[in-house]
Amino acid sequence: MSTPKILILGAGYGGLLTTLQLQKKLNYNEAEITLVNKHNYHYITTWLHEPAAGTASADHARVNLEGLLNEDKVQFVKGTVQSIQPNEQSVTLENGDVLTYDYLVIGLGSEPETFGIEGLKEHAFSIRSINAVRQIREHIEYMFAKYKNEPHRTDYLTFVVGGAGFTGIEFCGELGDRLPELCQEFDVDPELVKVYCIEAAPTALPGFDPELVQYAMDVLERKGIEFKIGTPIKQCTADGVLLATGEEIKSKTVIWAAGVRGNSIVEKAGFEVMRGRVKVDEYLRAPGYENVFVVGDCALIFNEEGRPYPPTAQIAVQEGETLGENLAALIRGELPQKFVPHLQGTLASLGKGEGIGQVGSKKLFGSTAAMMKKASDLRYLYKIGGVGLALKKVKL
Amino acid sequence: MSTPKILILGAGYGGLLTTLQLQKKLNYNEAEITLVNKHNYHYITTWLHEPAAGTASADHARVNLEGLLNEDKVQFVKGTVQSIQPNEQSVTLENGDVLTYDYLVIGLGSEPETFGIEGLKEHAFSIRSINAVRQIREHIEYMFAKYKNEPHRTDYLTFVVGGAGFTGIEFCGELGDRLPELCQEFDVDPELVKVYCIEAAPTALPGFDPELVQYAMDVLERKGIEFKIGTPIKQCTADGVLLATGEEIKSKTVIWAAGVRGNSIVEKAGFEVMRGRVKVDEYLRAPGYENVFVVGDCALIFNEEGRPYPPTAQIAVQEGETLGENLAALIRGELPQKFVPHLQGTLASLGKGEGIGQVGSKKLFGSTAAMMKKASDLRYLYKIGGVGLALKKVKL
Repeated sequence: MSTPKILILGAGYGGLLTTLQLQKKLNYNEAEITLVNKHNYHYITTWLHEPAAGTASADHARVNLEGLLNEDKVQFVKGTVQSIQPNEQSVTLENGDVLTYDYLVIGLGSEPETFGIEGLKEHAFSIRSINAVRQIREHIEYMFAKYKNEPHRTDYLTFVVGGAGFTGIEFCGELGDRLPELCQEFDVDPELVKVYCIEAAPTALPGFDPELVQYAMDVLERKGIEFKIGTPIKQCTADGVLLATGEEIKSKTVIWAAGVRGNSIVEKAGFEVMRGRVKVDEYLRAPGYENVFVVGDCALIFNEEGRPYPPTAQIAVQEGETLGENLAALIRGELPQKFVPHLQGTLASLGKGEGIGQVGSKKLFGSTAAMMKKASDLRYLYKIGGVGLALKKVKL
Repeated sequence: MSTPKILILGAGYGGLLTTLQLQKKLNYNEAEITLVNKHNYHYITTWLHEPAAGTASADHARVNLEGLLNEDKVQFVKGTVQSIQPNEQSVTLENGDVLTYDYLVIGLGSEPETFGIEGLKEHAFSIRSINAVRQIREHIEYMFAKYKNEPHRTDYLTFVVGGAGFTGIEFCGELGDRLPELCQEFDVDPELVKVYCIEAAPTALPGFDPELVQYAMDVLERKGIEFKIGTPIKQCTADGVLLATGEEIKSKTVIWAAGVRGNSIVEKAGFEVMRGRVKVDEYLRAPGYENVFVVGDCALIFNEEGRPYPPTAQIAVQEGETLGENLAALIRGELPQKFVPHLQGTLASLGKGEGIGQVGSKKLFGSTAAMMKKASDLRYLYKIGGVGLALKKVKL
């Protein structure tokens, strides 16, 4: 009997944690583990709003995979997945290479969900990768530089954030900290700078406690963010956004942060999906396939009330850890365990020293929430890279 | 008899030095001195290639006028000159204000000379002001950020410098230092980055000693700059440049550094000009006007062989100093002195620790030239702002 081949697609939270767990549990010759990822680094998606606004460097939000992987146990392939052929047990990369597997883990992450709004794909930015956020940061700075040479173009100083969910709110928090710095650097009157946070739903941060939502909005409004809640965006153009109310906001910078869907590769592979996400079973298996597992933003799981869990880093990490254990068990002929998410609470940052959080029935505000968020970040870094990484990355 | 009104337009080298000399020579009530400038700062034009490339901050290359002017002696007006009416002895600002004078000093600087090349005005950048160089720096960074999201667009990584004169060469020196840093920051393969320095004349740095020219080109070529000498640019478009040879270079970043002409306001005011520059007499007076003086890039003076001096900071500073003395003398009924430039040599930087220079018959290379340039910068800063400014600004 030959050594089983485990192929893991994507080094996001789900894929990386699966890999690290396998690396820990399995001995050298128990499996051939291959991790495929577009980049030679893992990025901390929940931090990307910081380099996007320019309050932290992009490097800060990524970790080289080299330092995390044991090359004697895991083969790393830098490549981009083009397609999955589950019936042939193979995966094709963009460079034409074909990888085969006995067990497949799909952790290919998400794509922006544009809800069919015209022009978003072409004209809006998304906070979705290191490369994307570097462009957002540079674009914002460039707008300030351009404005100084065309002072009638106040649209250069207008910024639109589409979505007041988690990402939109956290990004607004950072932008509120960053824009005064840019005004200083470029000698721009802060009164001329406008940030609109536009949300179609009847509230910001849907699902959060109303008191926390109010607190978050107050903090951001003090930083100059103007909210338009219950206001769908109808169209995005090269010159700004058109709202359902008929109002037009002229802007050269639209950041779309109103939701994600699963990677379209998954749907194209023939898996049954809802918004690009595969409804996995209690062992994180794709329906109809004993040997294909899905983690992270491509996986859809439901709570006891039959509602889908939102795609979060917290759940992706837990999925990866469980799946790594289960794959080790399967290879050894042992029984896998069912995946049950343990929700440890939710924390959102609102810029430097500010945040909100909900841990069980407890509400957290301000610096307490910000500190709890740092503690949670620290735990994650410790988990993937030990004390060294945690100390290197966490800004205290 | 009323106090004579001296109006100085522009706080560049010529205008600022005229003002400072007047401030030193005249007592409080001898004249009403007004200095008009677009910004509340003076910038060190000969340093602008550094913030343009991003090797120094834009702030480094400017000095707030507040710290240089004695407000009891000089009234500062932040405004943009729209027109000069020499026959009415008045100047109109863009905000509609009209200022009158008994003596006028025109130090309005230069505009890029595009030699009628199609598309340059619309599509090329110029290293001409703090605002302009901030945009160049941000534009270059933005190109790296954009390339990472559209990796087939290598034109984003191609940079064209039009002109291998002083400014073009000095800018290439800085760019050669900066680009490897940007490659590192954005994970870009340095092999993909191209810089072309394109010059219509048969040599780089026309007028310089051939041995120095060769040294400069060697230094820059080692930094990856590719020269195309004796190669006129025929057209500039949004997609790059078309050369007279028929070759097309695809680039989103064309920096035009191939010469300047006098500010067009001067020509529009009815003064007789050559390339926008007024052929002043030996007292720096505009022909036909006893009370209008021109300094810096708007003034044209000739050497003994009948050749025009190039517009340099060195000469502008000397003009300002002489004119300040002369205006003080005129007001006191004393005789003015004739202006004779004293050429103290020429120094060009080629990036960090590298340069070339010609001082009399002596040639300077490498770090010696770079140090001499720093010493010369130090002298200038000391002249306008004393020891404090010199120590604050010079990077040793």
